[in-house]
Amino acid sequence: MTFDPKERFFNFIIHLQQEICSCIEDIDGAEKFIEDVWQRPLGGGGWSRVLTNGEVFEKAGVNVSQVHGDLPDLLKGQVPAQSTSFYAAGISLVIHPKNPMIPTTHANFRYFQVTDSQGIILDQWFGGGMDLTPYYLFEEDARHFHKILKTECDKHTRGFYEKFKLWCDDYFYNSHRKEYRGIGGIFFDHIKPDQELSGERLESYIYGIANAFLPAYLPIVKKRLALSYSSDNKVWQEIRRGRYVEFNLLHDRGTSFGLKTGGRIESIFMSLPPTVRWEYNHTPKEGSPEWETLEVLKKPKEWL
Amino acid sequence: MTFDPKERFFNFIIHLQQEICSCIEDIDGAEKFIEDVWQRPLGGGGWSRVLTNGEVFEKAGVNVSQVHGDLPDLLKGQVPAQSTSFYAAGISLVIHPKNPMIPTTHANFRYFQVTDSQGIILDQWFGGGMDLTPYYLFEEDARHFHKILKTECDKHTRGFYEKFKLWCDDYFYNSHRKEYRGIGGIFFDHIKPDQELSGERLESYIYGIANAFLPAYLPIVKKRLALSYSSDNKVWQEIRRGRYVEFNLLHDRGTSFGLKTGGRIESIFMSLPPTVRWEYNHTPKEGSPEWETLEVLKKPKEWL
Repeated sequence: MTFDPKERFFNFIIHLQQEICSCIEDIDGAEKFIEDVWQRPLGGGGWSRVLTNGEVFEKAGVNVSQVHGDLPDLLKGQVPAQSTSFYAAGISLVIHPKNPMIPTTHANFRYFQVTDSQGIILDQWFGGGMDLTPYYLFEEDARHFHKILKTECDKHTRGFYEKFKLWCDDYFYNSHRKEYRGIGGIFFDHIKPDQELSGERLESYIYGIANAFLPAYLPIVKKRLALSYSSDNKVWQEIRRGRYVEFNLLHDRGTSFGLKTGGRIESIFMSLPPTVRWEYNHTPKEGSPEWETLEVLKKPKEWL
Repeated sequence: MTFDPKERFFNFIIHLQQEICSCIEDIDGAEKFIEDVWQRPLGGGGWSRVLTNGEVFEKAGVNVSQVHGDLPDLLKGQVPAQSTSFYAAGISLVIHPKNPMIPTTHANFRYFQVTDSQGIILDQWFGGGMDLTPYYLFEEDARHFHKILKTECDKHTRGFYEKFKLWCDDYFYNSHRKEYRGIGGIFFDHIKPDQELSGERLESYIYGIANAFLPAYLPIVKKRLALSYSSDNKVWQEIRRGRYVEFNLLHDRGTSFGLKTGGRIESIFMSLPPTVRWEYNHTPKEGSPEWETLEVLKKPKEWL
């Protein structure tokens, strides 16, 4: 294959990390990101940036990694038999705001390739997406988020938004609770260049959608950050954060892949919320705002 | 097989639940257990008792369940081929004290059998154990806990303590952190009557060791409950509780079995701590009491 976006993609995510961190710091006003650089013993490493105990953001983690080396056993059977090496690069972020009126968000964009012993690319794909997890639902926020995603998807390939929205709903599902993690977004994996979609067009879609993260999320933060909230609202946020932990530890394939391939624990668990609560059998009163959030999480909705 | 301890075991755990809850309430002084009775749609049910926001105990759950019915697919291949039905009964408890100087504890005793279409028992076994998870280590508490366990084990069969202590260390291991969950105790599973150990002797061991729970744990609670602690001690407790959550959701086979066989979510997750914290890359200062706890959790220790 002659399509080789490795270096361009890596440059892109390094710049995006910088841009996202700057914007988050600007809004927060109080705290800055700290960066930890880490090496993967078997090849590659990462740049983990975390902001904690800010004025607006209780915990925000924006991680870039680029890892490579011998093909992990876990991937054998899933890629062409002659593959000997892999390369993966990605940006992954989770933002946990302090104010329960602001939703948590997650985004992630990654490129993956396997090569043979001559360095020839045998298979390659992109994956990623972003989604929103509100504690209190403002329907206009959900619509705004999905609107930005659809508009960007439609610029590239008709049908991506619809397909990737369904995929997102399917993926971020706490099956043991029969509850969706949030109000969705888009999710896609193993998207490969083909006759209908050239590598160049696919790559340009990835950059477009990744660049849509800030316009999709920041306006919601700005709109809600001055809203007042009670300690009960905070307790509800912490209970719901418990569901976030349950999803990440029980169901998330990214977390599981990271743990099984010896990823850096603190970077993988950067996504976990800062303060969390499990209250036995907590059941919101029918008709309350908390109950309304739960109702929406029972079944995916068309927001547009 | 003529050894059929089903009814006796169930009576035993119902009474033990009552006794444990009374003792916990007495020490707490402020809060009482509430009970939820639940039915398993496919057969059987349970009695979940939870005490929350007490003076001494932040969350204590003591659950008894007795479930039966058609053999779940998950168990096929693990039991004799002619098995058609199963029966399982057990008591399971987790106690999360408020004061970080008091350790968290977990205990669990269960009986399992499978029968053929004539109701003939084809296989049967006991499992269980108890373990201690301190936030701040008092070596004499760890020694007391292990001493009670060894003394009780030795009354029945020499070698059980040594074997089951190793099994406990092996089991309660957060492999992704290279850290043990706590300072151990005993753990055993699939213990079946055989020529060396009759059903009657095995049953009497189970009752003996289950009755050892209160004398193993309560003296530690009483000794530590009046110790003062700071908000930093509480933060450390919440960070360590995060490791408890990680173990239960990532590694615990009981949690996984419960979720896969449609157990009651709120009873399974009763074990999760009330308030929990994930701080990015938290590293205690060398030589501090928090650091000392971590050191002990790196490698199992002979306490006796």
